[in-house]
Amino acid sequence: MSVSVFDHPVLSGWAGDEATRLALSFEADLAAMLRFESALARSQADLGLVPDSAAVRIGQACAGFQPDIAALRASTARDGVVVPGLIDQLRRAVDAPARQYLHMGATSQDVVDTSLMLRLKPLLAGYERQLEALETEVGALADQWGDRPLMAVTRMRAALPFSVGDRLCTWKQGLVAARHRLRGMQDTGLALQFAGPVGTLDKFTDGGGALRAALAERLGLPDPGGPWHVERSRMFHLATTLAQTTQATGKIGIDVALMVQDGIDALALTGGSSSSMPHKVNPVDAELLVALARKSSLNLGAAGLSAVHENERSGISWTLEWLCFPDLLASTGAALGVTARLLRSFRRMGPERPANP
Amino acid sequence: MSVSVFDHPVLSGWAGDEATRLALSFEADLAAMLRFESALARSQADLGLVPDSAAVRIGQACAGFQPDIAALRASTARDGVVVPGLIDQLRRAVDAPARQYLHMGATSQDVVDTSLMLRLKPLLAGYERQLEALETEVGALADQWGDRPLMAVTRMRAALPFSVGDRLCTWKQGLVAARHRLRGMQDTGLALQFAGPVGTLDKFTDGGGALRAALAERLGLPDPGGPWHVERSRMFHLATTLAQTTQATGKIGIDVALMVQDGIDALALTGGSSSSMPHKVNPVDAELLVALARKSSLNLGAAGLSAVHENERSGISWTLEWLCFPDLLASTGAALGVTARLLRSFRRMGPERPANP
Amino acid sequence: MSVSVFDHPVLSGWAGDEATRLALSFEADLAAMLRFESALARSQADLGLVPDSAAVRIGQACAGFQPDIAALRASTARDGVVVPGLIDQLRRAVDAPARQYLHMGATSQDVVDTSLMLRLKPLLAGYERQLEALETEVGALADQWGDRPLMAVTRMRAALPFSVGDRLCTWKQGLVAARHRLRGMQDTGLALQFAGPVGTLDKFTDGGGALRAALAERLGLPDPGGPWHVERSRMFHLATTLAQTTQATGKIGIDVALMVQDGIDALALTGGSSSSMPHKVNPVDAELLVALARKSSLNLGAAGLSAVHENERSGISWTLEWLCFPDLLASTGAALGVTARLLRSFRRMGPERPANP
Amino acid sequence: MSVSVFDHPVLSGWAGDEATRLALSFEADLAAMLRFESALARSQADLGLVPDSAAVRIGQACAGFQPDIAALRASTARDGVVVPGLIDQLRRAVDAPARQYLHMGATSQDVVDTSLMLRLKPLLAGYERQLEALETEVGALADQWGDRPLMAVTRMRAALPFSVGDRLCTWKQGLVAARHRLRGMQDTGLALQFAGPVGTLDKFTDGGGALRAALAERLGLPDPGGPWHVERSRMFHLATTLAQTTQATGKIGIDVALMVQDGIDALALTGGSSSSMPHKVNPVDAELLVALARKSSLNLGAAGLSAVHENERSGISWTLEWLCFPDLLASTGAALGVTARLLRSFRRMGPERPANP
Repeated sequence: MSVSVFDHPVLSGWAGDEATRLALSFEADLAAMLRFESALARSQADLGLVPDSAAVRIGQACAGFQPDIAALRASTARDGVVVPGLIDQLRRAVDAPARQYLHMGATSQDVVDTSLMLRLKPLLAGYERQLEALETEVGALADQWGDRPLMAVTRMRAALPFSVGDRLCTWKQGLVAARHRLRGMQDTGLALQFAGPVGTLDKFTDGGGALRAALAERLGLPDPGGPWHVERSRMFHLATTLAQTTQATGKIGIDVALMVQDGIDALALTGGSSSSMPHKVNPVDAELLVALARKSSLNLGAAGLSAVHENERSGISWTLEWLCFPDLLASTGAALGVTARLLRSFRRMGPERPANP
Repeated sequence: MSVSVFDHPVLSGWAGDEATRLALSFEADLAAMLRFESALARSQADLGLVPDSAAVRIGQACAGFQPDIAALRASTARDGVVVPGLIDQLRRAVDAPARQYLHMGATSQDVVDTSLMLRLKPLLAGYERQLEALETEVGALADQWGDRPLMAVTRMRAALPFSVGDRLCTWKQGLVAARHRLRGMQDTGLALQFAGPVGTLDKFTDGGGALRAALAERLGLPDPGGPWHVERSRMFHLATTLAQTTQATGKIGIDVALMVQDGIDALALTGGSSSSMPHKVNPVDAELLVALARKSSLNLGAAGLSAVHENERSGISWTLEWLCFPDLLASTGAALGVTARLLRSFRRMGPERPANP
Repeated sequence: MSVSVFDHPVLSGWAGDEATRLALSFEADLAAMLRFESALARSQADLGLVPDSAAVRIGQACAGFQPDIAALRASTARDGVVVPGLIDQLRRAVDAPARQYLHMGATSQDVVDTSLMLRLKPLLAGYERQLEALETEVGALADQWGDRPLMAVTRMRAALPFSVGDRLCTWKQGLVAARHRLRGMQDTGLALQFAGPVGTLDKFTDGGGALRAALAERLGLPDPGGPWHVERSRMFHLATTLAQTTQATGKIGIDVALMVQDGIDALALTGGSSSSMPHKVNPVDAELLVALARKSSLNLGAAGLSAVHENERSGISWTLEWLCFPDLLASTGAALGVTARLLRSFRRMGPERPANP
Repeated sequence: MSVSVFDHPVLSGWAGDEATRLALSFEADLAAMLRFESALARSQADLGLVPDSAAVRIGQACAGFQPDIAALRASTARDGVVVPGLIDQLRRAVDAPARQYLHMGATSQDVVDTSLMLRLKPLLAGYERQLEALETEVGALADQWGDRPLMAVTRMRAALPFSVGDRLCTWKQGLVAARHRLRGMQDTGLALQFAGPVGTLDKFTDGGGALRAALAERLGLPDPGGPWHVERSRMFHLATTLAQTTQATGKIGIDVALMVQDGIDALALTGGSSSSMPHKVNPVDAELLVALARKSSLNLGAAGLSAVHENERSGISWTLEWLCFPDLLASTGAALGVTARLLRSFRRMGPERPANP
């Protein structure tokens, strides 16, 4: 079953992306949350804030912890977030002396936000590699067909003759711009979240700075130098970066859809069929890319709204993030994979005959 | 695994709706698509367009047909729509003489659109009943607490004293308006889709009118009197109806979130807890309702874009429908269930002390 | 100067609509607000709630009242709404005995919302007439070119031959659906707003019902039977109706843009030129229609958000209405006018040569 | 008259920004377009591409050129863009030998895009200064009230006591993040557009590189090193930067609106009144900030769609830019000015009494 095409048992064969699906799975989320709790206790022990033995016990409990999913569903239905119930279950797996040190000084949002960041790190790196591969692929198409004449089209009308390579150059320009943005997001956008109940960490002597640095180090995430539980521009940048990626591939999609038109014939594809008209090769991947770009651009409205959190934590805006970011990520993953498949399906670029000027 | 909170193994315990989940499942979709193919052949036989024996064979093949899901994924990856591959598989399950009559005169969109309509019919009826139940529940709250004083609040400031009942009256007004809209959608928005490859049905003597009427009758859907494969205002109305429903419950959500504030104390809830502050009862369902209303309203952008189909069938806009309507439906189902749960969690309405004027 | 293309000194020659511009002008708003105040006093006098002489004085003051615009700007900068300052100025124009009866029982939102409704009434009627004229025009095109062959296009590929008339039929279908929706909005969506400070009108013996009815009658607006200052589905329906209208014309726009492509040649237009390529006839009106449809559909997000008002009056959501509805109206007015101009610019429909099957 | 609140004769006193209004005026646009044409001829003369005397004549014609606005409206209604008609008029103001060199190698989009960039340069610098001033103002508030106790609020419930300074710190964090983004936009986002009819500039020997560099230098804009007429990520970044700015001020707005609530009393404001309840001080500027943040975030959908241009120039997407960017700029200008006014209206921060823990 699936509300989303991205994990639909059949449609995901067309529009899904396995790496993104796995990153968004509850299994991956759970593993990352347990990693956070374990690393938190370990970092606290290293700083002498909790007994070393407690950190060891907590680490053991987290390793291979199997939650009672039904109980977790029930507690989440009450709490609106999975963490309180998860911590309850984890506490029961830790002996009494160590138990009090579990999740010490942390709050639900620390766990949830950091879990996302831990999963984003390899995912975004993968997206970047996919963009690079697409650039290479566009370059190979330029090598193969770039010299062929093509009619440049402006405002839907034939303008002046240029070349297949000129158009491919624009495709590449968009891919490169998206990759640079994705690189920037990885360089400055990823971060540990460790802010405590209201962002002050005043339970710790130095406002938690040393602990946050140690925890960040241990988790392999940058130390943001402060909380970002309310100031969500980091998430907003993620959203705009993802949307830009789908725009770059959406540009390829709309051009392909227009180029394959009968009468334009600037591109021939393999694949795609119709239940009533088997002679047709429909540019379904190109159309999907356009739809993904539109959907992702529209998801920016929700991402932008969710960037404004009232007070010290907004259940409204935080929940809204959960309603739009998975979709943005899945759309991006799909867009990258579909573009690769689409480019591989090019049979011919440039017209059958030279473009008439 | 789940990209969407609505079928997330844990979060769906909070934000999911089982009836919507089932309606959107591939199992339900498949059953409805097979029902279409079977009814099409049956109706064609009744009108003498195909041999009765063919309709019988096709009906038998459809009954209990189990597709090869892996093959369906593969064909859908090629075709961008499940139907061509499904028909291929079905054809292999029908003997030669009947085989040619399967899916006769129909196109993929007929199957997909009608399948959605068949599943919407009971789903929307269920939503309507849920709205009625919510109205009853709000009425019961008014009976219980309606006479208690409450400070009316305009532009975030205390305005003039009125009563709990006055505010509940506004909630009910929104629910009633949404229900009327939902009633209208059921009365005039549901319809069979039967348009053939390009909407003309000119393979049939009378432009297919008699067949469309018979098929509609058999499937229990209204006969739209023509095609709507390109003119998608029907889908747009569905989207606006669903969004309005979530707006009506979102109004309850935002009011509840504001009423429970410490210092306002106009409402007390049971349930909701925090991993770091166990004393707090967070209005998580109320916040979810606001988030769902915002997400659904924002989904209208995609729904509106998808209402404009270029030419005789838009793969872009049709795909875009698939990217936003499941979310709109799941949001609506969730919003209705969550509102019911939220209203049941009211411990007290009106202030602890009379409102000061 | 103009932030908006719709009242840009130059661009409005292309994308503006004079009727909408006038309806949205402050002059029209002011006239409608004064009409409300005058009719309120008159209705109150008729019901014996205020002295007849007071209603006469108030009516005289409203007739030809010229506000001090600079003072109004200043008061609005303080109040966030024009009405308090306007009433202050009006009060100074009314003698002492009558003065106390001005704006009696009303609140700013009554004046602002009703002013909009008074202006919408003729504006929407005009839109409906424009839609009817467009239907007639499409019919005339069908009479002229409908029998010519055309290649039906599905998913961007040539599908099967049909006729120009078949495609025009779809255009008409969308226009008719939008017109019905616009008719419904006029029948059930327009209404007087008279709710008082917090919606209860309890200053009046019967909850204000008789007064509201009398005022509605006098202003030529339906009596909604209660307040709608918070329950904004009426405004939401307005938004969806306007967006649907632009979607219907956007469909024409995208089809035209695709039909005029060199190589498709299914339509020839007059007009449109380029600063660098004078030979080109760009389908600029068609492109504008698509852009207007997209912008209007995206405005639905804001309209949907603004439909959820917290408490008894939301300054956030009400202000958000002012940020999106003028744009929706101006887009609709422009879309209708531009479509008329576009249809008149058709030089030829159908291909130069018969479509090849 | 005004479709937009931002240049409404009365509402702009509350929600307008003079600097943005002027930058978006046609007068400023015209001046920038003439500056482009003059600098183009001058740069071409410097490179020996046109006679020096022609550049002088063109420069003279541009200086103080007064277009026939009515004729420009008429030509724009035909061309969908002001430039062809403007060049026609300019040509008539230049004598025959120089005339042929006017607008040489350029296309409409070069003029329109560069005009926007020329106006953005001082406008964005002004926004940056306004953000700095807001940070200073927030710092001053922290100096004055930062030590006062405040109840931190998470998910709408009292969480733990912290201080006014802690909350102000979050406000500042958002302002700083927006300013950094605005700085980045100025550093890498601004650029000359000079691409010619289809982006190739192949009329010039070196693909136009030297001319583009010289023209950029003369106009004080960065040389992008290539065309960006189709690859619009530059515009998309502008949109996201502007939206982020309004989100930062929207955060202040929603917090203020919640803090002034009767019963919360964490902040007292001067100003704001109601036509029916003169005792109330409504947080109208705070509400406006929230509305502006929402509207701007929703405008990102349109900005994102407009970032995907089909072929070598999209009349659809380019026009869509004109429908959303002025609004984004005006919203940002308004948000910055309104925030300054709002912060100046703070009478007291922190509760009347110490927060109860």
